[in-house]
Amino acid sequence: MIKSFQQQLYRDIPLTCDMAMQITDFSNDTLTVQAPLTNNINDKGSVFGGSSSALMIICAWSLIKLSCIEKSIDADIVIHKNQTHWNKALFQDLIIVATFVESYNFDKVKEKINTGKHQRINCEIKLVNAENVLFSTMKAKYVIIPQK
Amino acid sequence: MIKSFQQQLYRDIPLTCDMAMQITDFSNDTLTVQAPLTNNINDKGSVFGGSSSALMIICAWSLIKLSCIEKSIDADIVIHKNQTHWNKALFQDLIIVATFVESYNFDKVKEKINTGKHQRINCEIKLVNAENVLFSTMKAKYVIIPQK
Repeated sequence: MIKSFQQQLYRDIPLTCDMAMQITDFSNDTLTVQAPLTNNINDKGSVFGGSSSALMIICAWSLIKLSCIEKSIDADIVIHKNQTHWNKALFQDLIIVATFVESYNFDKVKEKINTGKHQRINCEIKLVNAENVLFSTMKAKYVIIPQK
Repeated sequence: MIKSFQQQLYRDIPLTCDMAMQITDFSNDTLTVQAPLTNNINDKGSVFGGSSSALMIICAWSLIKLSCIEKSIDADIVIHKNQTHWNKALFQDLIIVATFVESYNFDKVKEKINTGKHQRINCEIKLVNAENVLFSTMKAKYVIIPQK
Protein backbone atom coordinates (compact mmCIF):
# COMPACT_ATOMS: atom_id res chain seq x y z
CA MET A 1 0.00 0.00 0.00
CA ILE A 2 2.83 2.40 0.90
CA LYS A 3 4.61 1.86 -2.43
CA SER A 4 1.59 2.71 -4.60
CA PHE A 5 0.68 5.62 -2.30
CA GLN A 6 4.24 6.93 -2.69
CA GLN A 7 3.99 6.77 -6.50
CA GLN A 8 0.64 8.56 -6.35
CA LEU A 9 2.20 11.33 -4.24
CA TYR A 10 5.03 11.81 -6.77
CA ARG A 11 2.44 12.09 -9.55
CA ASP A 12 -0.10 14.30 -7.74
CA ILE A 13 2.26 16.51 -5.67
CA PRO A 14 5.43 16.96 -7.78
CA LEU A 15 7.31 18.71 -4.95
CA THR A 16 7.37 15.41 -3.00
CA CYS A 17 9.40 13.98 -5.92
CA ASP A 18 11.69 17.05 -6.06
CA MET A 19 12.39 16.61 -2.33
CA ALA A 20 12.96 12.85 -2.88
CA MET A 21 10.60 12.15 0.01
CA GLN A 22 10.30 8.45 0.87
CA ILE A 23 7.76 6.91 3.21
CA THR A 24 9.71 4.31 5.19
CA ASP A 25 7.15 3.18 7.76
CA PHE A 26 3.45 3.39 8.54
CA SER A 27 2.37 1.53 11.67
CA ASN A 28 0.92 2.13 15.13
CA ASP A 29 -0.58 5.51 14.21
CA THR A 30 2.85 6.79 13.16
CA LEU A 31 4.22 7.60 9.72
CA THR A 32 7.93 8.01 9.01
CA VAL A 33 9.43 9.79 6.04
CA GLN A 34 13.04 10.14 4.93
CA ALA A 35 14.62 12.63 2.53
CA PRO A 36 18.21 13.27 1.49
CA LEU A 37 20.01 16.47 2.49
CA THR A 38 21.13 16.99 -1.16
CA ASN A 39 17.66 17.81 -2.53
CA ASN A 40 16.77 19.86 0.54
CA ILE A 41 19.98 21.77 1.22
CA ASN A 42 20.33 25.51 1.84
CA ASP A 43 23.05 28.14 1.41
CA LYS A 44 24.69 27.08 4.70
CA GLY A 45 24.90 23.39 3.73
CA SER A 46 22.17 22.43 6.20
CA VAL A 47 18.49 21.57 5.71
CA PHE A 48 16.41 24.36 4.13
CA GLY A 49 13.65 25.31 6.61
CA GLY A 50 11.16 25.44 3.73
CA SER A 51 11.99 21.84 2.82
CA SER A 52 11.68 20.55 6.36
CA SER A 53 8.39 22.43 6.74
CA ALA A 54 7.00 20.99 3.49
CA LEU A 55 8.15 17.46 4.40
CA MET A 56 6.62 17.69 7.88
CA ILE A 57 3.33 18.93 6.38
CA ILE A 58 3.17 16.07 3.84
CA CYS A 59 4.27 13.53 6.48
CA ALA A 60 1.27 14.18 8.75
CA TRP A 61 -1.01 14.57 5.72
CA SER A 62 0.10 11.10 4.55
CA LEU A 63 -0.50 9.65 8.03
CA ILE A 64 -4.10 10.90 7.92
CA LYS A 65 -4.63 9.95 4.25
CA LEU A 66 -3.37 6.37 4.74
CA SER A 67 -5.47 6.02 7.91
CA CYS A 68 -8.48 7.05 5.78
CA ILE A 69 -7.54 4.69 2.93
CA GLU A 70 -7.29 1.78 5.40
CA LYS A 71 -10.93 2.38 6.37
CA SER A 72 -12.07 3.23 2.80
CA ILE A 73 -12.93 6.78 3.85
CA ASP A 74 -13.47 8.80 0.70
CA ALA A 75 -12.37 12.28 1.74
CA ASP A 76 -10.03 15.18 1.09
CA ILE A 77 -7.52 16.20 3.74
CA VAL A 78 -6.44 19.82 4.05
CA ILE A 79 -4.08 21.59 6.43
CA HIS A 80 -5.73 24.36 8.45
CA LYS A 81 -2.94 25.75 10.64
CA ASN A 82 0.43 24.84 12.06
CA GLN A 83 3.27 26.09 14.20
CA THR A 84 6.88 25.04 13.94
CA HIS A 85 9.96 25.46 16.07
CA TRP A 86 13.48 24.91 14.75
CA ASN A 87 15.99 24.08 17.52
CA LYS A 88 19.16 23.89 15.48
CA ALA A 89 20.54 23.27 11.99
CA LEU A 90 20.61 19.71 10.61
CA PHE A 91 23.57 18.86 8.33
CA GLN A 92 22.42 15.27 7.63
CA ASP A 93 19.59 13.49 5.81
CA LEU A 94 16.12 14.14 7.23
CA ILE A 95 13.96 11.70 9.15
CA ILE A 96 10.45 12.92 9.88
CA VAL A 97 7.95 11.23 12.19
CA ALA A 98 4.27 12.19 12.36
CA THR A 99 1.89 11.03 15.09
CA PHE A 100 -1.64 11.88 16.20
CA VAL A 101 -1.82 14.20 19.24
CA GLU A 102 -4.83 12.24 20.49
CA SER A 103 -6.23 8.82 19.60
CA TYR A 104 -8.74 8.88 16.72
CA ASN A 105 -11.14 6.04 16.03
CA PHE A 106 -11.25 5.98 12.23
CA ASP A 107 -14.39 3.80 12.23
CA LYS A 108 -16.16 6.72 13.99
CA VAL A 109 -14.42 9.20 11.68
CA LYS A 110 -15.88 7.25 8.73
CA GLU A 111 -19.41 7.47 10.16
CA LYS A 112 -19.00 11.21 10.63
CA ILE A 113 -17.60 11.79 7.13
CA ASN A 114 -20.40 9.64 5.64
CA THR A 115 -22.98 11.96 7.23
CA GLY A 116 -21.28 14.89 5.43
CA LYS A 117 -19.50 16.31 8.50
CA HIS A 118 -15.87 17.44 8.76
CA GLN A 119 -13.37 15.87 11.15
CA ARG A 120 -10.54 17.87 12.70
CA ILE A 121 -7.27 16.00 13.28
CA ASN A 122 -4.30 17.27 15.34
CA CYS A 123 -0.82 15.95 14.62
CA GLU A 124 2.67 16.41 15.97
CA ILE A 125 5.62 16.04 13.64
CA LYS A 126 9.28 15.75 14.58
CA LEU A 127 12.40 16.23 12.48
CA VAL A 128 15.26 14.05 13.72
CA ASN A 129 18.51 12.59 12.40
CA ALA A 130 19.58 8.95 12.24
CA GLU A 131 20.64 9.14 15.92
CA ASN A 132 17.13 10.38 16.85
CA VAL A 133 18.36 13.84 17.91
CA LEU A 134 15.49 16.36 17.67
CA PHE A 135 15.97 19.32 15.28
CA SER A 136 12.45 20.67 14.77
CA THR A 137 8.90 20.17 16.02
CA MET A 138 5.63 21.04 14.28
CA LYS A 139 2.09 20.99 15.62
CA ALA A 140 -0.47 20.94 12.83
CA LYS A 141 -4.25 20.94 12.51
CA TYR A 142 -5.82 19.22 9.50
CA VAL A 143 -9.43 18.78 8.43
CA ILE A 144 -10.91 15.69 6.76
CA ILE A 145 -13.60 16.89 4.35
CA PRO A 146 -16.18 14.61 2.68
CA GLN A 147 -15.70 14.53 -1.10
CA LYS A 148 -18.53 16.24 -2.97
CA MET B 1 20.77 42.87 -7.50
CA ILE B 2 17.55 40.81 -7.47
CA LYS B 3 18.53 38.88 -10.62
CA SER B 4 21.92 37.71 -9.30
CA PHE B 5 20.40 36.98 -5.87
CA GLN B 6 17.74 34.88 -7.59
CA GLN B 7 20.40 32.87 -9.46
CA GLN B 8 22.31 32.37 -6.21
CA LEU B 9 19.14 31.04 -4.55
CA TYR B 10 18.58 28.53 -7.38
CA ARG B 11 22.18 27.33 -6.97
CA ASP B 12 22.32 27.26 -3.15
CA ILE B 13 18.74 26.16 -2.34
CA PRO B 14 17.67 23.82 -5.18
CA LEU B 15 14.07 23.62 -3.95
CA THR B 16 13.59 27.31 -4.90
CA CYS B 17 14.33 26.24 -8.50
CA ASP B 18 12.00 23.21 -8.28
CA MET B 19 9.21 25.53 -7.08
CA ALA B 20 10.06 28.01 -9.91
CA MET B 21 10.08 30.79 -7.33
CA GLN B 22 10.66 34.24 -8.81
CA ILE B 23 11.37 37.43 -6.88
CA THR B 24 9.32 40.11 -8.62
CA ASP B 25 9.81 43.10 -6.32
CA PHE B 26 11.96 44.29 -3.43
CA SER B 27 11.16 47.80 -2.22
CA ASN B 28 9.86 49.67 0.83
CA ASP B 29 10.72 46.87 3.26
CA THR B 30 8.59 44.43 1.25
CA LEU B 31 9.61 41.49 -0.91
CA THR B 32 7.26 39.85 -3.41
CA VAL B 33 7.65 36.39 -4.87
CA GLN B 34 5.65 34.59 -7.53
CA ALA B 35 5.44 30.89 -8.34
CA PRO B 36 3.34 28.90 -10.81
CA LEU B 37 0.61 26.54 -9.63
CA THR B 38 2.01 23.76 -11.89
CA ASN B 39 5.20 23.18 -9.89
CA ASN B 40 3.37 23.56 -6.58
CA ILE B 41 0.15 21.68 -7.20
CA ASN B 42 -1.43 19.02 -4.95
CA ASP B 43 -3.77 16.06 -5.40
CA LYS B 44 -6.80 18.37 -5.38
CA GLY B 45 -5.45 20.64 -8.15
CA SER B 46 -4.81 23.48 -5.69
CA VAL B 47 -1.60 24.77 -4.08
CA PHE B 48 0.24 22.20 -1.94
CA GLY B 49 0.43 23.56 1.64
CA GLY B 50 4.05 22.42 1.85
CA SER B 51 4.92 24.49 -1.22
CA SER B 52 3.19 27.62 0.04
CA SER B 53 4.87 27.18 3.43
CA ALA B 54 8.32 26.78 1.84
CA LEU B 55 7.77 29.77 -0.46
CA MET B 56 6.57 31.96 2.42
CA ILE B 57 9.63 30.94 4.49
CA ILE B 58 12.08 31.75 1.65
CA CYS B 59 10.20 34.98 0.81
CA ALA B 60 10.76 36.51 4.28
CA TRP B 61 14.27 35.03 4.43
CA SER B 62 15.07 36.79 1.13
CA LEU B 63 13.63 40.07 2.45
CA ILE B 64 16.00 39.92 5.43
CA LYS B 65 18.96 38.68 3.35
CA LEU B 66 18.61 41.44 0.72
CA SER B 67 18.20 44.05 3.49
CA CYS B 68 21.49 42.77 4.94
CA ILE B 69 23.23 42.74 1.53
CA GLU B 70 22.16 46.37 0.95
CA LYS B 71 24.03 47.34 4.12
CA SER B 72 26.97 44.92 3.54
CA ILE B 73 26.03 42.96 6.66
CA ASP B 74 27.95 39.70 6.58
CA ALA B 75 25.63 37.31 8.40
CA ASP B 76 23.64 34.10 8.22
CA ILE B 77 19.87 34.21 8.55
CA VAL B 78 18.00 31.29 10.08
CA ILE B 79 14.33 30.69 10.80
CA HIS B 80 13.54 30.10 14.48
CA LYS B 81 9.77 29.59 14.59
CA ASN B 82 6.63 30.30 12.63
CA GLN B 83 2.89 29.84 12.60
CA THR B 84 0.69 29.63 9.55
CA HIS B 85 -3.01 29.78 8.89
CA TRP B 86 -4.59 28.59 5.65
CA ASN B 87 -7.99 30.21 4.96
CA LYS B 88 -8.93 28.40 1.78
CA ALA B 89 -7.54 26.55 -1.24
CA LEU B 90 -5.83 28.52 -4.02
CA PHE B 91 -6.31 27.16 -7.57
CA GLN B 92 -4.16 29.83 -9.25
CA ASP B 93 -0.49 30.87 -9.38
CA LEU B 94 0.95 32.03 -6.05
CA ILE B 95 1.88 35.58 -5.10
CA ILE B 96 3.67 35.90 -1.75
CA VAL B 97 4.41 39.15 0.04
CA ALA B 98 6.76 39.41 3.03
CA THR B 99 7.01 42.47 5.29
CA PHE B 100 8.64 43.31 8.61
CA VAL B 101 6.25 43.28 11.60
CA GLU B 102 8.11 46.27 13.04
CA SER B 103 10.54 48.78 11.53
CA TYR B 104 14.20 47.68 11.71
CA ASN B 105 17.08 50.11 11.27
CA PHE B 106 19.61 47.99 9.38
CA ASP B 107 22.44 50.46 10.15
CA LYS B 108 21.87 49.63 13.84
CA VAL B 109 21.49 45.94 12.99
CA LYS B 110 24.91 46.12 11.30
CA GLU B 111 26.51 47.64 14.44
CA LYS B 112 24.96 44.87 16.56
CA ILE B 113 26.08 42.07 14.21
CA ASN B 114 29.60 43.58 14.04
CA THR B 115 29.88 43.30 17.83
CA GLY B 116 29.08 39.57 17.51
CA LYS B 117 25.47 39.78 18.73
CA HIS B 118 22.40 38.17 17.16
CA GLN B 119 19.44 40.16 15.88
CA ARG B 120 15.90 38.80 15.99
CA ILE B 121 13.59 39.78 13.12
CA ASN B 122 9.82 39.25 12.98
CA CYS B 123 8.08 39.02 9.62
CA GLU B 124 4.57 38.58 8.33
CA ILE B 125 4.01 36.80 5.03
CA LYS B 126 0.81 36.67 3.00
CA LEU B 127 -0.22 34.33 0.20
CA VAL B 128 -2.56 36.05 -2.26
CA ASN B 129 -3.72 35.62 -5.85
CA ALA B 130 -3.50 38.12 -8.72
CA GLU B 131 -6.69 39.82 -7.43
CA ASN B 132 -5.04 40.25 -3.99
CA VAL B 133 -7.47 37.86 -2.26
CA LEU B 134 -5.84 36.45 0.92
CA PHE B 135 -5.38 32.66 1.10
CA SER B 136 -2.82 32.16 3.87
CA THR B 137 -0.92 34.14 6.51
CA MET B 138 2.36 33.26 8.23
CA LYS B 139 4.08 34.95 11.16
CA ALA B 140 7.76 34.01 11.35
CA LYS B 141 10.70 34.74 13.63
CA TYR B 142 14.19 34.76 12.11
CA VAL B 143 17.61 35.36 13.63
CA ILE B 144 20.51 37.17 11.96
CA ILE B 145 23.71 35.50 13.17
CA PRO B 146 27.21 36.96 12.67
CA GLN B 147 29.33 34.74 10.38
CA LYS B 148 32.13 32.98 12.21
